[in-house]
Amino acid sequence: MTKSAPGGTGPQQYSTPDECEAAFYAAFRSGSLAAMQDAWSGRGEVMCIHPGRPPLSGHRAVMQSWAEILGSTGGVSVRFECHDRIHAGGVAVHTGLEVIGAEAGEPALVTVTNVYELTPAGWRMRLHHAAPVHRGTTGAGAPLH
Amino acid sequence: MTKSAPGGTGPQQYSTPDECEAAFYAAFRSGSLAAMQDAWSGRGEVMCIHPGRPPLSGHRAVMQSWAEILGSTGGVSVRFECHDRIHAGGVAVHTGLEVIGAEAGEPALVTVTNVYELTPAGWRMRLHHAAPVHRGTTGAGAPLH
Repeated sequence: MTKSAPGGTGPQQYSTPDECEAAFYAAFRSGSLAAMQDAWSGRGEVMCIHPGRPPLSGHRAVMQSWAEILGSTGGVSVRFECHDRIHAGGVAVHTGLEVIGAEAGEPALVTVTNVYELTPAGWRMRLHHAAPVHRGTTGAGAPLH
Repeated sequence: MTKSAPGGTGPQQYSTPDECEAAFYAAFRSGSLAAMQDAWSGRGEVMCIHPGRPPLSGHRAVMQSWAEILGSTGGVSVRFECHDRIHAGGVAVHTGLEVIGAEAGEPALVTVTNVYELTPAGWRMRLHHAAPVHRGTTGAGAPLH
């Protein structure tokens, strides 16, 4: 059971992974923690990995991290370019690039794997794995692993 | 169609995602490019993101990156700790930590999302997304995103 959004409108029902993805990034941009909560599965089995950080497991820890991010930034200028989609049964995996802060000059790039799951309340975020792209790594030469 | 392993034994048939995962990490440790190729789906739609790097798409680009890594290192001391499993239909998503070089002192940690798909040749790697964990980020305080 996900929490209702403020105003008693209840959680949004996302009928596709793309709708959930759009809601997730809208929440990320707007800084709305309630909207961010609605984008995630309300089940305990969620995981989030922020860039350069170890994994966070469980709804409570993941939402606490988003409260810190959205509270300190008031929202982030971010858009997601999906490069790869894997869909099977009630799970969808979208991998691509987040482009952050493009309006302030050279944007930061973050590789992302988002996993959505179909819940009784529609499609929700199950896993968000974000990773920094180090500058100067788009060509050959740097160590790969 | 995946390539046959040297010696004409043909590609291994991995009957579970865990078997494929074990084969992938055995290849990573041994430095065998043929074994690494056998762990991956032979289809074109594969993706690999090495730590700090942008995404690589397609079988050819992904295998070229592994040829460089395994060729330059001769194999890497690595083990995978799976923290989270999502399984639906013919897709399995395993997320956790790679622990690299533990025998040489403090190990490097890499967060990983591995996606396996069921192909006519058994379970194979479809996506490998690896990300650096920056030192000093296991506590509170550092920016999260």
